[in-house]
Formats: sequence, C-alpha cells, structure tokens
Amino acid sequence: MAAPQFKQLRRSYGFDEVAIVPGDITTNPDQTNIDFKVESFTFSIPIIASAMDAVTDVNFATLMSQLGGLAVLNLEGIQTRYDNPEEVLTKIAQVSDAEVTPFLQKVYSQPIKENLIGERIQAIKQSGAVCAVSVAPANTKRFAPITAEAGADIFVVQSTVTSARHISKSYRGLIFPELCKSIPMPIIVGNCVSYGACLELLRTGISGVLVGVGPGAACTTREVLGVGVPQITATIDCAAARDKYLGESGRYVPVITDGGFRKGGDLCKTFAAGADAIMLGSIFAQAKEAPGLGYNWGMSHPHPALPRGTRIKVDTTGTLEQILFGPASVTDGSQNLVGAIRTAMGICGVLTIQEMHKVEMVIAPAITTEGKSWQASAVYKSSSDA
Amino acid sequence: MAAPQFKQLRRSYGFDEVAIVPGDITTNPDQTNIDFKVESFTFSIPIIASAMDAVTDVNFATLMSQLGGLAVLNLEGIQTRYDNPEEVLTKIAQVSDAEVTPFLQKVYSQPIKENLIGERIQAIKQSGAVCAVSVAPANTKRFAPITAEAGADIFVVQSTVTSARHISKSYRGLIFPELCKSIPMPIIVGNCVSYGACLELLRTGISGVLVGVGPGAACTTREVLGVGVPQITATIDCAAARDKYLGESGRYVPVITDGGFRKGGDLCKTFAAGADAIMLGSIFAQAKEAPGLGYNWGMSHPHPALPRGTRIKVDTTGTLEQILFGPASVTDGSQNLVGAIRTAMGICGVLTIQEMHKVEMVIAPAITTEGKSWQASAVYKSSSDA
Amino acid sequence: MAAPQFKQLRRSYGFDEVAIVPGDITTNPDQTNIDFKVESFTFSIPIIASAMDAVTDVNFATLMSQLGGLAVLNLEGIQTRYDNPEEVLTKIAQVSDAEVTPFLQKVYSQPIKENLIGERIQAIKQSGAVCAVSVAPANTKRFAPITAEAGADIFVVQSTVTSARHISKSYRGLIFPELCKSIPMPIIVGNCVSYGACLELLRTGISGVLVGVGPGAACTTREVLGVGVPQITATIDCAAARDKYLGESGRYVPVITDGGFRKGGDLCKTFAAGADAIMLGSIFAQAKEAPGLGYNWGMSHPHPALPRGTRIKVDTTGTLEQILFGPASVTDGSQNLVGAIRTAMGICGVLTIQEMHKVEMVIAPAITTEGKSWQASAVYKSSSDA
Amino acid sequence: MAAPQFKQLRRSYGFDEVAIVPGDITTNPDQTNIDFKVESFTFSIPIIASAMDAVTDVNFATLMSQLGGLAVLNLEGIQTRYDNPEEVLTKIAQVSDAEVTPFLQKVYSQPIKENLIGERIQAIKQSGAVCAVSVAPANTKRFAPITAEAGADIFVVQSTVTSARHISKSYRGLIFPELCKSIPMPIIVGNCVSYGACLELLRTGISGVLVGVGPGAACTTREVLGVGVPQITATIDCAAARDKYLGESGRYVPVITDGGFRKGGDLCKTFAAGADAIMLGSIFAQAKEAPGLGYNWGMSHPHPALPRGTRIKVDTTGTLEQILFGPASVTDGSQNLVGAIRTAMGICGVLTIQEMHKVEMVIAPAITTEGKSWQASAVYKSSSDA
Repeated sequence: MAAPQFKQLRRSYGFDEVAIVPGDITTNPDQTNIDFKVESFTFSIPIIASAMDAVTDVNFATLMSQLGGLAVLNLEGIQTRYDNPEEVLTKIAQVSDAEVTPFLQKVYSQPIKENLIGERIQAIKQSGAVCAVSVAPANTKRFAPITAEAGADIFVVQSTVTSARHISKSYRGLIFPELCKSIPMPIIVGNCVSYGACLELLRTGISGVLVGVGPGAACTTREVLGVGVPQITATIDCAAARDKYLGESGRYVPVITDGGFRKGGDLCKTFAAGADAIMLGSIFAQAKEAPGLGYNWGMSHPHPALPRGTRIKVDTTGTLEQILFGPASVTDGSQNLVGAIRTAMGICGVLTIQEMHKVEMVIAPAITTEGKSWQASAVYKSSSDA
Repeated sequence: MAAPQFKQLRRSYGFDEVAIVPGDITTNPDQTNIDFKVESFTFSIPIIASAMDAVTDVNFATLMSQLGGLAVLNLEGIQTRYDNPEEVLTKIAQVSDAEVTPFLQKVYSQPIKENLIGERIQAIKQSGAVCAVSVAPANTKRFAPITAEAGADIFVVQSTVTSARHISKSYRGLIFPELCKSIPMPIIVGNCVSYGACLELLRTGISGVLVGVGPGAACTTREVLGVGVPQITATIDCAAARDKYLGESGRYVPVITDGGFRKGGDLCKTFAAGADAIMLGSIFAQAKEAPGLGYNWGMSHPHPALPRGTRIKVDTTGTLEQILFGPASVTDGSQNLVGAIRTAMGICGVLTIQEMHKVEMVIAPAITTEGKSWQASAVYKSSSDA
Repeated sequence: MAAPQFKQLRRSYGFDEVAIVPGDITTNPDQTNIDFKVESFTFSIPIIASAMDAVTDVNFATLMSQLGGLAVLNLEGIQTRYDNPEEVLTKIAQVSDAEVTPFLQKVYSQPIKENLIGERIQAIKQSGAVCAVSVAPANTKRFAPITAEAGADIFVVQSTVTSARHISKSYRGLIFPELCKSIPMPIIVGNCVSYGACLELLRTGISGVLVGVGPGAACTTREVLGVGVPQITATIDCAAARDKYLGESGRYVPVITDGGFRKGGDLCKTFAAGADAIMLGSIFAQAKEAPGLGYNWGMSHPHPALPRGTRIKVDTTGTLEQILFGPASVTDGSQNLVGAIRTAMGICGVLTIQEMHKVEMVIAPAITTEGKSWQASAVYKSSSDA
Repeated sequence: MAAPQFKQLRRSYGFDEVAIVPGDITTNPDQTNIDFKVESFTFSIPIIASAMDAVTDVNFATLMSQLGGLAVLNLEGIQTRYDNPEEVLTKIAQVSDAEVTPFLQKVYSQPIKENLIGERIQAIKQSGAVCAVSVAPANTKRFAPITAEAGADIFVVQSTVTSARHISKSYRGLIFPELCKSIPMPIIVGNCVSYGACLELLRTGISGVLVGVGPGAACTTREVLGVGVPQITATIDCAAARDKYLGESGRYVPVITDGGFRKGGDLCKTFAAGADAIMLGSIFAQAKEAPGLGYNWGMSHPHPALPRGTRIKVDTTGTLEQILFGPASVTDGSQNLVGAIRTAMGICGVLTIQEMHKVEMVIAPAITTEGKSWQASAVYKSSSDA
C-alpha cells in the first residue's frame, strides 16, 4: 500500500558536497574587485570577524578594520562583563575539558556592566576603525540607545535564530522597523537560513542579514535541537530572497554567510552560492592576535540550562594578515583567504563578487576523496606521530 | 539492453540525514504545550520509557509518572521471572562480553511467575503512578486478564513487528478488535513502520501505535533479518496513516516513535516528522535510577536460537530529572530533552506538537559534519585519552 | 554552456543501502517453504556453497547435501592438482601476508590431474550427496565429458564474467546450446550482473544462472578492473531477465546470487530482490568443516599476471550446521541463516521464496548507523582489546 | 514559503562512485587494440606520464617511449633550473614534513636556465624517444620558439585551469590559434573540466586536451580554491565536447584525462567515460625509475603565496614495466595497468578504446565496500603492524 505524502523533504547541501566549475574564460586575479558594502560603508574585503569572545576584542577589531575588513564586538560577553577580560580568557584556556562547561556557565553568569559597553566602543572608534557591535534580541531595546550614544557604526542583532516576528503572550517582541527608525546606524540581523525567513527580515528595512544556523565549528545546535540548513543551500535560498527583495524595493541588501568555514575553498563556494560577504569565527580564533589563545567556544555554550556549544582547540597558526593575505606557510587552504578568493574568481573568469554569484557549481561529494588516498595516509601518520 | 523494472525502491531517511528548517516567525518556548494524550490519559510530556529490563522497573515507572511522562513495564522480563530481580541485573552488568549472550539466554529461559505480574502492577499503582505494561502477542491472551485484574491502566502489545493479522495454520493469531473489547484499558500496539501496516493496525480499534523496527541502540534486527525502515521515513508514513484513519473514523490515535534516539535533536526531528510521542530506551538506561546499572540490551537479545541484540555499555550520566529537564552538564544534547523540544518549537514558531508536525524539514546529510572538523579532533583526542 | 548527454548513469544499490519493509500481515516462520529447484533436483534450503578451495572439498559437499543444500567442487583448484590437498591447504594458512600472492601463484601453476577429477566426483557420489562441479569456460570442452562420465549431477561453468557469446579471432568460444545437448546434466552458468547478459545466457537453454561480479569478500576485481554491479541491483535486473525468459519460453530458470554476503540480513534482502537461491563463500569458510582452516582467497587470486583477489582471515566460528540452523552463539547475524530467512519471511507475511520476491524494499543507507553509536563504540573497544 | 530557484546544481561523479557493467558478449583481451593517436604520432598504449618533477626526467621519458607510451617533461621545474637535478631531488626526499613547503618554495624560486631547456630536449631526442614538453601559459610565448628549435615533438601548455581566452587589462593573454600557427608541433592544452571550456579550447585548433582540475593525489586545489569537477563527470562532459567538435570540424581531437588515478579500475572507468588516453602522476612516481625517490608533490605546491599541493610519500613498488605490463606482485590493481585495461575491454565485449566509450556504467558507491569487511580488517591489521 503506497503512503500518501505526509511531508516532502527537499535535498540541501553543505560545503563538502559541492564544487565550483571553472569558467569558459579566465581572468587576471589581480584585477578582481571584492568590495563589500553595507549602506554607506565600503570594505575592501568581504570578510567579517564574528562576535565571539575568542575572536573579537578591541585590538582585533582595530586590526581587522586596518586590513580592509570588519569585526563585530559581542556586547554580552566577557568584554562587557569584566573590567579585565584577559584574566578570564586566560583561565578559560587553562581549565580542563571536564570542567569547561560549568566554568563557562559561571563566567557568563556575571552581569553585563553598561559602562564597559561605552568604553569598548569608544576604544575601537579612537583607533580609527569602523565599530560594529552585536546584541541578542532580548537585550536590544536596552542596549541600542547606549550603543548609539557611544558612537558605534553598525549594529548587529544576533541569536541562533532571529525572525521578523517573535510571538509571546508575556512580552512584546522586538519590532525591527521600529528599531531601524530609533537608531542612526545600519542594522544587520541574523541568523536565518530559509527564503521565507530571510525575505521577511529584509522587508523590515534592515541593512544586512546573517545566514547560518548551527554550522559553526564550536556549535552543537544541530545535535541538541535538530535545526539547521547546510550553508550552501542556506546561502542559495537567502540570495534568492535578496534578489526578490531587490525586485520589490530597489534596495540591494547584502547576504552575509556566517559559520562553518575551514578553508579558502569553503569561502569561494559560498560566494558562488550567492553570498555578498562571509563571517568567520574559528579561522580567526587561530590568529596570533585573537583573544582566545588558541581556543574557541560556541556563543550558546554558556547557556545555563541547555548548553549548545563546545570548547574547541583551534591552535594559533599565524598572524591575521597572513590568514587574510598570505604568504601561506600551510597547504590546506587556511591561509591567504583573500588570495584564494581572487584566484578562484580568475579561474571562473569573473571580476566581481556579483559575477561570482552566477558561476556554475556541481554537486560533487567525491571532491574531498577522489585520488587523495596518499594524502589521507599522510594525515593518519602525522596525527599518530603527534 | 535496458532492464524492465522488476522492483522500484523508494528512498527513506534516518535522523542524521534530515534537519528542521527554522520558522519564518519564532515563539516563546516557555509557552509551548507538549501534552500527549492516550484516550482519557493526558501526560504533560510526550516521552515514554520503553519496556526494557535495563530501563523500567517499579521505581523507575513511579518516578517517570511523577515527572509527567509514562514508563512501560516488561511483563515477560526479569521483573516477572525473578522474585529478586536486582540480583540478576547485577550479574548481567558483571558478566564479560564473551559470556553475555549465553548468560542472557539462560536468564530469560526461567519461567514467568504469574503472581509477580500482579505484584509489580500493584506496586506501581500504589505509588500513584499510571501503570503501563507490555506483553508479546503470543502471551497476550494469557496475560491480558491477569493484567486487567491487577489494575493496570494501559496495555502494550509489542514485538519486533506486530501486524493486524498473523497467518498460521497451527494456531489462531491475536485478534485486536476482540482484545480491545475484552479488556477495559487503552491498548497500544507495535511495532510497525509502513503506511499500510499502521493503517491496518489503527483500523482494529487500538489506542496507540508504536513505530520503529530495528533502530534501537541495542538491537541488531536490521543486521540479522535485513528488515526495518529508518525512523524519519517510518514516522512520516505512519503519521500519514494516522491522518487517513482520522479522516475515516474521526478518531485521532497517537503515533509513538520508538527507538534509535541519542540526543535532543533526534526527538525534535521526529516530532517534525509527525510523531505524537516518543519512546526512549538507551537514553533512559543512562539515568542514575535505571535498573540496568549503566548497561542496556535488546529485547530480542536473549532469543534462544536467533539473538538479535547486543549488550551495550551506556554509562550512567545523570538523574532522570536532569535527562528530561536539565540543567545539562553536557553539551551533546543527551540532557534536558524537554528543554530541547520546547526550544526547537520556539525556533520553528509553533506552540503545539501538532503544529510541529507541519514544520519544514530538509534532507541534509551534511548537518553532522559541516564545519565540525575541530569537534571531530576533540572526540578523537578524548577517546584516545580514555 | 550545458553539456549534451554523452553518457547516462543509472543508480545501483548494494546490501547496506536497502532494507526490507515488514508486511501488512505476518506469517508463522515455521510454515514457510524455502525449497529451491534446479531442473529435477529439489533442495530444502536455497543455499549453495561456492566452488572455492577454502570452502568446498569432498567432505564439505557431503555435509552440505545432508543438511539440505548444495556445494560446488572447483575442478581446477587444489583438489584436482594435488593428490594430498590438505598438505597444500595447511601451507596456505601458514604463509605470511607478504608471501601469499606469489605462493598461491606457484600452487596454482601445477597441472590439473584428470584422474583426480573422476576420483573427487565419485567420492562425493558415494557419500550419497548430490554432486555439483565447476569448470572455467576455457576448460569446459575438455573436462565436461570426464565429468559426465564420472557421474556428476550438476555442471557449473563459471568465470568472473561469462557471456553467451565470446568473440575471438584465434579460437572458437564455448557454445552453450551445444554444451547443453552434449552432457546429460543441468548446466548453471555465471557470473553475470545485467538484464541483457542474463537474458542472453538464459536463452541458450541453461538451467541456472549465477549473479555477481566482484562482491566476494576475497575478490578485488572491482578495484583492478572497475567492473561490477552491486548485488541488490544485479539481482533485481537478472530477476527481470528470468521473468522475461519465463514469458518467452515457459521455463522458470533460477537466479542464484553469488558473493558478498556477510550476515542473515544480506541473504533476506537478496531474496526480496528476486533471487531463487544464494551462493556463499567466506561465510562457509568460517565453518569448522571448511578446508580453508580459517582463511579464504579469491578465485582469481592466483592469476599469474593480474591477480584479482586477496587472502583474508575469516576465522572459524562454528559448525556448518550452526551457521545454517543455529542456535546462534553470536548476535551479528552470521549464524542461523535459515532461521533468519524464515523469520524475515514471517515478518513480511509471505510463505514462499517467490512471494518474498514481491515484498517492498526501501533505499535506506541510514539502516546501518541509525541509533547504533553505542554499538560502534563497543566494536572499537573490542577490536582495541584484541 | 518555497524558495525560487537561485541556482541549480547538477550531480557529478568520481571514480569510486561508478562501475562498469560487463557486456552482453565478451571478447578476447589479447586481440584488443588500445592505440592512441595525437596527430601523426601513434602510441601503442594510451598512457602518458605527467609533467611532474617526481615523475618525468630524461631517462623516464626515454623508457616510457620505449614501452609504447609518452612522458611529458616539465620545462619549468627542477630539470631546467638546476644543472644537477638529482642533488635537489635527493634533498626534497630527505627534508622533514614540517620543512618541506618552505624548502620547495625556495627550490622553485631559482631561475629557469634557457640552455637547460635545449639540453634536456636534445637528450630525449637522442635516445630515440618521442619528446613532449610542458610549459605554463605565462611562459609559453617565451619558451615555445626555444622548444621548437631544440626539436621537441609535442608541446603541452598546462596550468591548473587553462581557458581559450584569458582576460587581463595589463597584458595580452595567450592566443592559441596564433600559437598553433607559430610552432610546427601538435599542441596539447589543459586542464579543463567542462563541456563549454573544452569545446572552446578545441575550437582554437589544438591537437589534444587535458581533463582534470584538482584530482591529483598531491594536489590541494579543491581544498584551497573550491574549484574542480570529479573525473568521471569531467571526462563525460569533455568527451561530449570532443564529439561536438568532431561534428563541426571533422577533426577527432583526443581527450586525455589527467590525475587522481590509483589503480587499474580507475583507468578502465575513465575510458568507459569517454577518455582517449590517461595521464598518470603518483602511480608512476612509484616506479623504480622515477626521479622522485618514492615521493611526489603537486605542481602548485611551490607557489610562493598560495601553495596548493602537498608532498606525499608514494613508496617505490616496482619497475615501470611491471606497473604497465605486470606481472603484478600486488593484488590492489596498481600494477599491470595495460593488462587491466585489456581484460576490462574483454569483459565488456569491445575491441577498441572508442568502442569502450560506449559501454554502460552505473552509479555504484557500494562497489568499494560491498562484502569487503574482511578486507577492511586486513588493511587495518597490516597498517597497525607497520
């Protein structure tokens, strides 16, 4: 007896399942333009450092801005709960695996100090950098005015999943059109992964959208809650929403894919999937200048009742400049990310990120293993040597 | 030469191959309603402890009822074969891997004592708990009256596969419409995995159906017999049968998905696939209060000629309350299962389990690996530390 | 630019990718009929021991016949090259992994003694067993008369791939219709894997066909030559050819799936795919009575220029009777194969192998992993204990 | 809300995902013709050694030509940068894994000596061999005349991706129709992987095309840049372009699939996918006569800013003659490659490579694991023995 259709499931794809098809023509990588714009701000590289405590502090934000990108400071993390955050970060790097979850729960139970919000923002601004800050939806009404007053440039509202409308009987959810009017800054909102959710967010008038639920290297949301969409499909669907909204409104609002990247190839595929910029966490936690001291942990890791992250050891592999622009001392694609993007664009015969959106991709799970048996052995050997 | 079609094969999906797509709106998790009803019984959480000897005894059933759920006592196991079951359970936990299969075959060759059936039921009832008991089809006619007399509340007829009609030349199979009339209790029957088999079972007038053949962590039925359907597709197909039967009869009979769950995400996906409740074995065997002392074994493990299970070490990880309601001390989703269900429902923008049935899912095998290379290394390291 | 279609590729499936869906009704396993017929011979179990030197010798053939099945003696192996085969088999079991390929090449370079062919056949016949023997196509014209004269019952012509027509400018290939007329025995031919090749073989008038290229546990044909079709699809396609030929000719010629089986579930799936019988090598090499002393090796392993097999250690796990009929001392499905077939048939609600051909199967790669993480750990642990 | 289609992704396949279906008839392998032609040159085997420094030097090119194939000398590598290349090759084999990437970057920063180009070509010609040489597009205009003057026979222009048109504002790209007119040799160009790019290359008038981006065993392009197409689909698409161009022009220009091969089966599948010849790197680096001393490294490994390769240990397994023609001392398909091609052609019932293009293939990921659990254990054991 054949079952009537109760539920249809569509196939979705992640980084390792797709590959970019080289173009019929090629272009000179040195002549590619990879600018990224958020309202009146233009960045010379389409790469953003994520609002994780192991990634962005005042110094890192300054350096990232100097190198042409953007970094987002988490206003609800260690930087605004502690006058001396370095001390806490050092302890996090020292605590054992068994103790780390309760320790993080304790660290993040300290209250946020409003004065520190202002101080951190001003420190970034005084360095000459563009200052982007991140707040969860629940704290947005409270912190947005302080942030504006302190002179921040870009305001990010971010949680695991943020929707245009939050339904509750006990409180009034965040209304983005009201927020957009109330503060004089571009607002970037996330995260979302579907066409519908992204389109509804765009229609509230925001200036950027973050795409990605659960892909982060330090995140266990997909295990704990079962929610998420792999990044290539999520980006393709949200890019479709961006283009739909562009047709409706005439506004081109950038799609920023956030999380799960390990190497240059992942970035290149994401641009081919339709992203305007990408946001990196763990790769930047590997920088010498990162505050995490070789570690990273998920933003929902310290959740008091339902932790959805894990502390991971990422090691320190090079300077931020080396990670972004090379020269690479490793051959696995985790350094010279900008060089990788430009080279891939050259191979695809395109000159801008928007042209890159149109290149062909194939579903290609074989891509990671075909012909690589000798590499695999090498990996095994070196890991058993360690 | 092209082959004419001898047999068509439809694609089916398991937990790790799908993911839930967040909603276009979100809701407040605290306001979700996750009630589960079997006829006149209403449970505040849609989670049932399975009729495995390592999971449910009198104490566990009592505690589970107090926490809002239900536990099913196996009437053909150690609890009704031995006056002192703790002694036997201790020995099972102590015997070596090499000896365990013949030892279990011996333990389960002892006869069932009818007086113990009554005693166990009464002990559960005296605690104030709802009492559910489980019997195989072959013993149903014999044990159903004793069970009714002893005051059980819910009667479960369960075997690897139970169908509405069993054909034999040598004996008369169990007739469910007759059984339903003969005992004054809701009857839950299982297991099944297909639209047709589920619909035929529902049409016999039963009050609940168990879905799942072979997914259990301690079960090897799929290896030994080759039968089974992965849980997401099985649930989708049986939910279609439930809706079909609802249309025919006006009766809404719950679909209870049984087996294979390891973490909160698996539960959430199953509700999105159409389940009304879920039944857990090995996860509950990890509770401090579980009688299995850190072990679990398949219900067909002691089969005298064709054992189809294995003893697995699940370890003891926390209290039953912690597993159900947190706070979680681990980040892998095996604790605070109720919190995970409510949080996922909030992310999907729904308020009831029946609304959860309608959320979108995608086929997403990448979900378990995308971006997780650093987590994988952590796992390797910790396992080699052990 | 879209590519015009140069070549279409159809998806094919192996054992681990499919699962049997339980039936809407169930039947009593004890009442199933699993007879298998080759012309006038009827066997009470549909299982054949393959013509491998580590599996079938005179004693094994005798025992297999007594237990209701059939074993095929390889007339081009150790049994007909050596007066004292036990001595050679013992050496094969003792030689090191590094030395085994040249050693086997040397062992099989000894000439076949025609007198031994007659002696082995007569020994099997004297025991009262049905005697089946196997010869490669190249030697068929030479050995067929000797075999017939010695009183063999069933003649098997077997090579990696055998087709109805072999094209050569330098010699005349084997013509099956002529062979069928020249010897007074049923002729079984193999191996093949496609609808077209199987249908052409059937049309030559043979009495059985062997299905399977490369799945054998000791075979590396798929690595070395790239040819083969996974067993489930191969069986489905050849079953379609059998039914086509039945329609054309009125003759029902059995399809015997050969190779790649590891456990009861694989056998059950193969019957559901359309097989009339199955042929086992490595599973029988595990029997106490097998001549391989715990080892098996591929039939093309000793090839002088292009060895396409490997010696594998299968260990000795029980008696042949235990492997076929239990009771099983293991829970992985490698023992009580007949019990597994009958139990699966009961679960599917069928009474004969031909009814089993019609049961539903699903594509279900999740079947081997869903919920089994604790089993996986157990496997790891026990292998690292060893 | 369903997403409008932003981007369609087509499925592509690699070696391990497909298998060749045996033919309805079979042929005698000894009578197969596997000639390969490039303009007026005819080679008796369709196998080319790649322009890698660990594979082809003067001696290797000579030997390869004597055995009926062709080897391509890299004119931008160690052979033309160093008077005494053996010394450098020995050091590369001795340096540690940690030091090898900067060491290779240094080795390849030495300038190319134009006099050595002429010397190497003349040495190959003096041995009586056909001389093929390889140059990157950027150096083609400079080196082509020197090469022609020195008497080379075949000119290969090769980079990761080479297109018919390269767009740059700062320099004039290579114009292949002009190049074809300017030098009196067949020109082979690569690499490409798509129908469109291949067709555009063919239309420039070249004499052969190399297919494959990123599959090489020592290549990490797919990780670093995300570009590439698995070899079976790439070959199928480029074969379609060849046939399209044949229809347009009447010229049959061979498709040479380059990279990712590990064993005979991979070669056979590639011919079935439509290749006219195949190019091998790491397999030939295993030959006793290879200059790499048991190592190989990617051609983009020494890139100064974005290294896209890795040094791999391939070990030395036999002579080049043994690798090509056997007898094989191993059973994994890495030796007697020509025997494997002929045997597979026999099994498919074809007599020429062009007939081999038409044989059926199936998508068959099960092919590598079905029934092979005992082999896997053997692999584990032997690797832990090592």
